[in-house]
Amino acid sequence: MIKAGIIGSTGYAGQELVRLLLGHKEVEILWYGSRSYIDKKYYEVFGNMFRIVDAVCMDDNMKELAEAVDVIFTATPQGLCASLVNEDILNKVKIIDLSADFRIKDVSVYEKWYGIEHKSPQFIDEAVYGLCEINREQVKHARLTANPGCYTTCSILSFYPLVKEGLIKPDSIIIDAKSGTSGAGRGAKVNNLYCEVNENIKAYGVLTHRHTPEIEEQLGYAAGQDIKIIFTPHLVPMNRGILVTGYANLAKSLSYEEVRAAYDKYYTSEPFIRILDQDVCPETRWVEGSNYVDINFKLDQRTNRIVVMGALDNVVKGAAGQAVQNMNLMFGLPETEGLELVPMFP
Amino acid sequence: MIKAGIIGSTGYAGQELVRLLLGHKEVEILWYGSRSYIDKKYYEVFGNMFRIVDAVCMDDNMKELAEAVDVIFTATPQGLCASLVNEDILNKVKIIDLSADFRIKDVSVYEKWYGIEHKSPQFIDEAVYGLCEINREQVKHARLTANPGCYTTCSILSFYPLVKEGLIKPDSIIIDAKSGTSGAGRGAKVNNLYCEVNENIKAYGVLTHRHTPEIEEQLGYAAGQDIKIIFTPHLVPMNRGILVTGYANLAKSLSYEEVRAAYDKYYTSEPFIRILDQDVCPETRWVEGSNYVDINFKLDQRTNRIVVMGALDNVVKGAAGQAVQNMNLMFGLPETEGLELVPMFP
Amino acid sequence: MIKAGIIGSTGYAGQELVRLLLGHKEVEILWYGSRSYIDKKYYEVFGNMFRIVDAVCMDDNMKELAEAVDVIFTATPQGLCASLVNEDILNKVKIIDLSADFRIKDVSVYEKWYGIEHKSPQFIDEAVYGLCEINREQVKHARLTANPGCYTTCSILSFYPLVKEGLIKPDSIIIDAKSGTSGAGRGAKVNNLYCEVNENIKAYGVLTHRHTPEIEEQLGYAAGQDIKIIFTPHLVPMNRGILVTGYANLAKSLSYEEVRAAYDKYYTSEPFIRILDQDVCPETRWVEGSNYVDINFKLDQRTNRIVVMGALDNVVKGAAGQAVQNMNLMFGLPETEGLELVPMFP
Amino acid sequence: MIKAGIIGSTGYAGQELVRLLLGHKEVEILWYGSRSYIDKKYYEVFGNMFRIVDAVCMDDNMKELAEAVDVIFTATPQGLCASLVNEDILNKVKIIDLSADFRIKDVSVYEKWYGIEHKSPQFIDEAVYGLCEINREQVKHARLTANPGCYTTCSILSFYPLVKEGLIKPDSIIIDAKSGTSGAGRGAKVNNLYCEVNENIKAYGVLTHRHTPEIEEQLGYAAGQDIKIIFTPHLVPMNRGILVTGYANLAKSLSYEEVRAAYDKYYTSEPFIRILDQDVCPETRWVEGSNYVDINFKLDQRTNRIVVMGALDNVVKGAAGQAVQNMNLMFGLPETEGLELVPMFP
Repeated sequence: MIKAGIIGSTGYAGQELVRLLLGHKEVEILWYGSRSYIDKKYYEVFGNMFRIVDAVCMDDNMKELAEAVDVIFTATPQGLCASLVNEDILNKVKIIDLSADFRIKDVSVYEKWYGIEHKSPQFIDEAVYGLCEINREQVKHARLTANPGCYTTCSILSFYPLVKEGLIKPDSIIIDAKSGTSGAGRGAKVNNLYCEVNENIKAYGVLTHRHTPEIEEQLGYAAGQDIKIIFTPHLVPMNRGILVTGYANLAKSLSYEEVRAAYDKYYTSEPFIRILDQDVCPETRWVEGSNYVDINFKLDQRTNRIVVMGALDNVVKGAAGQAVQNMNLMFGLPETEGLELVPMFP
Repeated sequence: MIKAGIIGSTGYAGQELVRLLLGHKEVEILWYGSRSYIDKKYYEVFGNMFRIVDAVCMDDNMKELAEAVDVIFTATPQGLCASLVNEDILNKVKIIDLSADFRIKDVSVYEKWYGIEHKSPQFIDEAVYGLCEINREQVKHARLTANPGCYTTCSILSFYPLVKEGLIKPDSIIIDAKSGTSGAGRGAKVNNLYCEVNENIKAYGVLTHRHTPEIEEQLGYAAGQDIKIIFTPHLVPMNRGILVTGYANLAKSLSYEEVRAAYDKYYTSEPFIRILDQDVCPETRWVEGSNYVDINFKLDQRTNRIVVMGALDNVVKGAAGQAVQNMNLMFGLPETEGLELVPMFP
Repeated sequence: MIKAGIIGSTGYAGQELVRLLLGHKEVEILWYGSRSYIDKKYYEVFGNMFRIVDAVCMDDNMKELAEAVDVIFTATPQGLCASLVNEDILNKVKIIDLSADFRIKDVSVYEKWYGIEHKSPQFIDEAVYGLCEINREQVKHARLTANPGCYTTCSILSFYPLVKEGLIKPDSIIIDAKSGTSGAGRGAKVNNLYCEVNENIKAYGVLTHRHTPEIEEQLGYAAGQDIKIIFTPHLVPMNRGILVTGYANLAKSLSYEEVRAAYDKYYTSEPFIRILDQDVCPETRWVEGSNYVDINFKLDQRTNRIVVMGALDNVVKGAAGQAVQNMNLMFGLPETEGLELVPMFP
Repeated sequence: MIKAGIIGSTGYAGQELVRLLLGHKEVEILWYGSRSYIDKKYYEVFGNMFRIVDAVCMDDNMKELAEAVDVIFTATPQGLCASLVNEDILNKVKIIDLSADFRIKDVSVYEKWYGIEHKSPQFIDEAVYGLCEINREQVKHARLTANPGCYTTCSILSFYPLVKEGLIKPDSIIIDAKSGTSGAGRGAKVNNLYCEVNENIKAYGVLTHRHTPEIEEQLGYAAGQDIKIIFTPHLVPMNRGILVTGYANLAKSLSYEEVRAAYDKYYTSEPFIRILDQDVCPETRWVEGSNYVDINFKLDQRTNRIVVMGALDNVVKGAAGQAVQNMNLMFGLPETEGLELVPMFP
């Protein structure tokens, strides 16, 4: 059994990680970290865990934790993982960081967009960007994996084959993304109250959202060049789900079959990516509770553009599910272990 | 023009009061009080008011306010109004208190259920319980009106004719109430976050909710005896609306027509109470945004009980609309002025 | 492997059954019945099943199905199962009927409340009422199991220990129930459109809902006498979940510990019933996607009554999950097989 | 008093028209047309109208109606108005058509995108496209006004100053729009059931939505050239509201002040268009129930593009409110009569 510790287990992503690991037959959770709820029963914070988890929430002590477990998940605000990790800890445990601390290779870009100083830039190079479908082999040997963001996972996977195969002009990419409210976290803020979110849709973080440079960096690697995109997130009155609607200019005239072939080339044997039948639009309800990303596209002959659509569950493939997928790779387990979840509807 | 000041204008009830008073042709709002947002533009707190209200939020200074306006609405937490009001102020302005401070005549009951000391019990006797349909004449002459609670308005009006006419056994009353989330206020609490309320229903405050003694006191007056009821509120994933489903044992065998006649006796000329056609159940959507209370009942011959149902919009008839209705009475205006609102659907 | 066929696999309960059986290691689904979608790919009806289920929807042929499978689930409107079943079929397969056809032992009561003639009353006696926690032993030997209704499961389990132990006066029971909208089925009706259900709560079927006699019959067995209750269902704007708030007069003065002991006596080793800690109210979100029933109660010394609360997921424990639980018992499998589902939140 | 008749008064737009006209002091509604509910009380179809509207639904007889009223609103599916209108009728009454029949000047474009034959193309030229902010003078003299679509109103008004002033490259326009579910109408379809829409977001009609040519035609007039855009609508789990997020390449380098000046030039005295303060994003909740369009933009120096955002209430400014605004102009009333509605929140 792999022994796991979770720092930040009482956020939405942390709690979903608990749910998934409870269903994973090779893992046991030893440490339910939560600075906000120290000494409180975990099930008092999340009533679904009553009679399932009897543990008590513990403080965020990565040093002590490193002695006790094989893998540490950090599902915490930006900056915490970078401030706690060190060589000694990395020699003892594997770390999967669900925050943004090790996602961006250029530390100045990180510091500019996140507005905080990076406390352990010496590990950025070593950290593997844990988008399994693209960096599978590196993840297998990682000590420190940077679990991608929710919007970025959906955006990158939706565009990757197009960019990699040179089918679109990468600087023309516009991503209009829509997210359920669990993505806003469990902090007590007026803006996230029920009556503020319900019966409303809005854009936020327009041109300044922190997932922008992460998408640009990763798609830039695929393009073989630096790229600039527009990324606009929106808040949708629903609990889970991200839908990405992306636009780009085609690099040349293309048929449906040609574009489809590009997607199939990269994804046909991917267990968690489903390229939908022609003309079927991804919907977040069809992936809810699962690790799937549903993707499709449509070509516009009138404007010589492509519309790309991707849907995932932000707390599964966009956070906890992807973290488990990374863990499976890092520990030599079948990649789908504990993740063969049928989406739950309605 | 009546000059109005609002203390607590940035809660949900306060903001609804603003909306209603803006549509009231005899009133102008001079004071947008809000301790939390002092010096902030009101429209920055509520974007709907952009280009409609240009005022800035001001501190809660009832003394200063009393010099400037004709009526003060206090839409604040319990205790504030009682701590601010005094004889000098009451000599200058009329006060409509949307909190519970002056609703309950027995100060020991107030202090027990609310857990706070009452700071001006000397005004309790004078204060009129502002349920216009029942205390219309007293309201007309009040200096200080206690605006009823949302659950209580719906509960009392639904049961009043039955109790008054002795058609039910008053001690058998059970009220199972359901409220939209605006009733929980605009405070930043984890329990009221979108993801916590959405896709959920729960009872809360079971047997301890503070509206219980208010209902008991008022229905007790109607019954001519002290009564004890069970009142169970529930939180429903919707913005507005309260539905009360009440149960009671019949005092004798009764026909539909007999019970209907009791309701008609008290409500037939009430502008804001609609007794629905036989077998039509009240629904909160049909009163949303309006000052109506929709009421109906059904007799169960099998168990010799009655099921009573009432629906209203908790921020209108349950708060701000009723406050305006009280103001109209207190200032000799037509009772429906500014309140002839067609419910908005969907 | 148990071979299963589902008649009515494209309703909400039928689809949930598919989801659960896909995660059950002893079962394979051979027949996806759906009169409305014959010859259509199942994943075209439910997009979540893309790349998971490749089967095509088939007609409702119970005779042919009986040759091919070991167990038939009928998740269809009332009357269909009773019209199809016969001795020959029951000799070949086990049947778990999710409709109401075999739930009520008194055929005249069935015909009165459902308004249809029962087509095979000869099997009513044999059929076992499949509430596993109460009829576990009989279910193990059943050929034909009547899977209980969603409201009834929640209502009966919430009150059973109180009635069985004589702690309450059974004729005083009032059940105020609230259900998510999946309980209304997937038929295209104006009343179930998004804009009609959203931002609304209403009672429906007041005093006439068909689950009433089912609750009365089962609780009557527990009470050892005929009983009459009031049951009022409400429609809540959420997908899943039933909350029952029940009221009854105590038979004598009782302490928390005494009542708690009664619940523990019947449920302490039940895998799917969770009696919550004192003062914690059941909430539907904490059981969503799982087979749990969360139950609690509160005693009112003021009125000598008890308030009972129960929550379950109407498509799991209220339908498909309970059907799988019954199947497990009927085939000698561990009762929890395929049902150890951690509730999904948010 | 202007006498009004509504053909199609039992759809969502028709019902909203009733609500608005009931609050309009110069209008009385004489005819509640509804083919689906002939002879049914209007309040039985919409319970909010109980005790407010006592009328009975009548058949769609435009000829008879033309004798009785001054203005006819047709809030019906495409094709109906075109099939009923004739010279004789237009000589007697003014018509405001909320369907698409007279919106598009090129009949072949209409017939291609709508897939139906136009039954009275002879009136297309005369019909005025009723976007008051742009065609105010023509509307004043119209006999037949084509009330714009919901998405198109929001899209055109959001982009109009940019296109008219040549600030953007019109062929680079991409519009990503999000709509509440009332836009899908009140027809009983599985796709619009509560459980299908709730907890979901999806694009639909990708590259084929019928509002595309309408936007292209109107913005083409502003640009002085034919243009082609991409328009992608999405369905959002909320009742009301449209949010448009638009993207375009700037024609040249521009400052915030320059772009703002363009918006102010066209909209500064418009009663229903609110250009928000810099960096404030439009949200549908802030316009709900009102005739406002909230608009803002943000310049991206990194990509030399502009992001444009617009929000309106699809059943008010996107349908019924705009129809009343057109009526006011056509009858020489103040344009804002009956439309000075404070947005309702929450």
